[in-house]
Amino acid sequence: MPDSWLDLAPDAQFGLATLPYGVFGTDDDPAPRTGVAVGDHVLDLGAAARALDAPFADTVDRPSLDALLAAGRPVWDQVRAALTDWFTDPARAEAVRPHLVDRASVRMRLPFTVADYVDFYASEHHASNVGRMFRPDQEPLTPNWKHLPIGYHGRSGTIVVSGTDIVRPTGQRKPPTEPAPVFGPSVRLDIEAEVGFVVGTGTEMGERVAVDDFADHVFGVFLLNDWSSRDLQAWEYVPLGPFLGKSFATSVSPWIVPLAALESARVEQPAQDPEPLPYLRGSGPGGLDLRLEVRLNGHLVSTPPFSQMYWTAAQQLAHMTVNGASLRTGDVYASGTVSGPERGQRGCFLELTWSGKEPLSLPDGTERTFLEDGDEVTITATAPGPDGTTVHFGEVTGRILPAR
Amino acid sequence: MPDSWLDLAPDAQFGLATLPYGVFGTDDDPAPRTGVAVGDHVLDLGAAARALDAPFADTVDRPSLDALLAAGRPVWDQVRAALTDWFTDPARAEAVRPHLVDRASVRMRLPFTVADYVDFYASEHHASNVGRMFRPDQEPLTPNWKHLPIGYHGRSGTIVVSGTDIVRPTGQRKPPTEPAPVFGPSVRLDIEAEVGFVVGTGTEMGERVAVDDFADHVFGVFLLNDWSSRDLQAWEYVPLGPFLGKSFATSVSPWIVPLAALESARVEQPAQDPEPLPYLRGSGPGGLDLRLEVRLNGHLVSTPPFSQMYWTAAQQLAHMTVNGASLRTGDVYASGTVSGPERGQRGCFLELTWSGKEPLSLPDGTERTFLEDGDEVTITATAPGPDGTTVHFGEVTGRILPAR
Repeated sequence: MPDSWLDLAPDAQFGLATLPYGVFGTDDDPAPRTGVAVGDHVLDLGAAARALDAPFADTVDRPSLDALLAAGRPVWDQVRAALTDWFTDPARAEAVRPHLVDRASVRMRLPFTVADYVDFYASEHHASNVGRMFRPDQEPLTPNWKHLPIGYHGRSGTIVVSGTDIVRPTGQRKPPTEPAPVFGPSVRLDIEAEVGFVVGTGTEMGERVAVDDFADHVFGVFLLNDWSSRDLQAWEYVPLGPFLGKSFATSVSPWIVPLAALESARVEQPAQDPEPLPYLRGSGPGGLDLRLEVRLNGHLVSTPPFSQMYWTAAQQLAHMTVNGASLRTGDVYASGTVSGPERGQRGCFLELTWSGKEPLSLPDGTERTFLEDGDEVTITATAPGPDGTTVHFGEVTGRILPAR
Repeated sequence: MPDSWLDLAPDAQFGLATLPYGVFGTDDDPAPRTGVAVGDHVLDLGAAARALDAPFADTVDRPSLDALLAAGRPVWDQVRAALTDWFTDPARAEAVRPHLVDRASVRMRLPFTVADYVDFYASEHHASNVGRMFRPDQEPLTPNWKHLPIGYHGRSGTIVVSGTDIVRPTGQRKPPTEPAPVFGPSVRLDIEAEVGFVVGTGTEMGERVAVDDFADHVFGVFLLNDWSSRDLQAWEYVPLGPFLGKSFATSVSPWIVPLAALESARVEQPAQDPEPLPYLRGSGPGGLDLRLEVRLNGHLVSTPPFSQMYWTAAQQLAHMTVNGASLRTGDVYASGTVSGPERGQRGCFLELTWSGKEPLSLPDGTERTFLEDGDEVTITATAPGPDGTTVHFGEVTGRILPAR
């Protein structure tokens, strides 16, 4: 990586290897605008692009990333190249510096308009664990699981940015000891640590996206917490899938890491057996070596390895469109819970505590099965960048408020 | 109903009892604008409101219904009262008449921006029939079915207006005789005749909507064809529900019938046993006496009675928000397939032909199990209006194009 004229610590959370995009405001100027995180700063992207007379100024001087997402791969590459130039060429310092904002002072917003939201189920470890718990009398994986990336649509309207408080959901659950469902606040409130992808370039109805065309459509990557009420979900999900157990809230990290930042993070995915159908095959490594960390009230409780996901994001996109379903700018899809083979790598409390039977002991002397009111969950991630650098994803965090 | 100065036939498809809203363009002036169907005409609503200096002109002089939907119940009532006045007061004729467009000349558009889309499963007859076919070794209804209105999220981005051609989807299916899934065009392409509802007034996250507050949030009603690929669906839907079997296309009728037009159509829903939990209870009749007709290539194949739906639209809305999930203007939800107790009242070919085992004989001498390329399916509906009038829903139609 080239050096920057900025005073970036070698271990700065957002070095030049990342340069993620977000939307921010400040107390002094709350109007939402696009930004790029770099070290302890946020670059006011629109203002900088205007000042430097960048050809893409109209695309980024906006209250959201929507126009940048829609602009397509050539513009995405152009903006990233310009950012690297701006932060490394000392001759640019004078023009760029006035548009840097203290990162500690910004309030991040949801960075783009979410179109559709699809949640996948791509970790073999997670799907196997859940199958053992939810359907103990059957094979852990359903017969289709290794033939297609299972997914379903979630609720776009309740996708919220990191830091938004989460009200404990209320609804029906059916304890095995009761003859009929009971009503009340969820007693098995959980997280799902996931990785999200956002579509920039859409497609027409009837079109398909090949696995190898992934990078022509997907703009970037972020972290996602698919808050889940296991008691609501267990009672409602047969036969049409999860609904209220998921729809109350989904939190996303505010900084979108462009795909271009993840070239050094590409790894071979786990071997797929049986070989998938041709439309699910691609060339080159499809895995991404993202290393997630899950913290409960500041205590590290899990380190899910994204590299272990059975289905890749490119395969998911190809599957999602193979029936001719169109894509729109702002479509979000998520990996499903990231769980590795080890207990300490499981991406939800359902698995970490084996459905509540094996509570987690926290360093403060308390135990947890599922989330209690006031609990705060934070997911972070890093990935290898070029030349020994580290790509940072920031965090997605949220705190549980009591049911209303 | 008062008389109109317009020359409306007594059996006109859109009399004063309906006055539905849509968005149209013409060949001469393709720019989308809001309209109201009345007899053989479409009123250019924005132009008329400007000409008559209506207080709501800014809300309706738009390229979509979005602003009207967001305006809320008092404005909805105001606009409907004004329309009735305009079409009945002879003194208005001179001002209104110039803004009438020949209905045969208009091209209808998707009338509003779809936010989230939820599909329910509210016909006991449909759910029982499907259960018998898909899960023959189990009870037809899952244990939760009579306790909650089962639903799931569908794909908003592939909701299209009536008349849009539907490309046959391609994907994985697993014939029972094959050891592994095969790939190709769907061979069991089906419809689902449904009734759709669109939300006007949204809610904040954490809020709930009571059954009796339904009319404060829902703007209107329309017809919906939830095109379904039964072979894709059967292979993919366990455990997380339908995905590609549904996401390729959903067609909607272009005319949104306001709730106010359906007061005379309100009927008691079928008795619910067991009694639902308190949050699913409301006062007054919750059913709607919509009488659907399904035609294949012009031949009437089914007459599904919406009055027989087990769960009401108001109960569905209360359920959808009981966990605190927010509503947005433009949220769509659909009833699920409308099927009555008789064979000729089933709302999909899966049921009409009992999974293809009992083909339908058509008057042209051909037989059908599932849809063939070139087939055209049209769903229409009427409901009782005041004073012996009839409320018309127009139609949702679509033709199958071969797989690409």
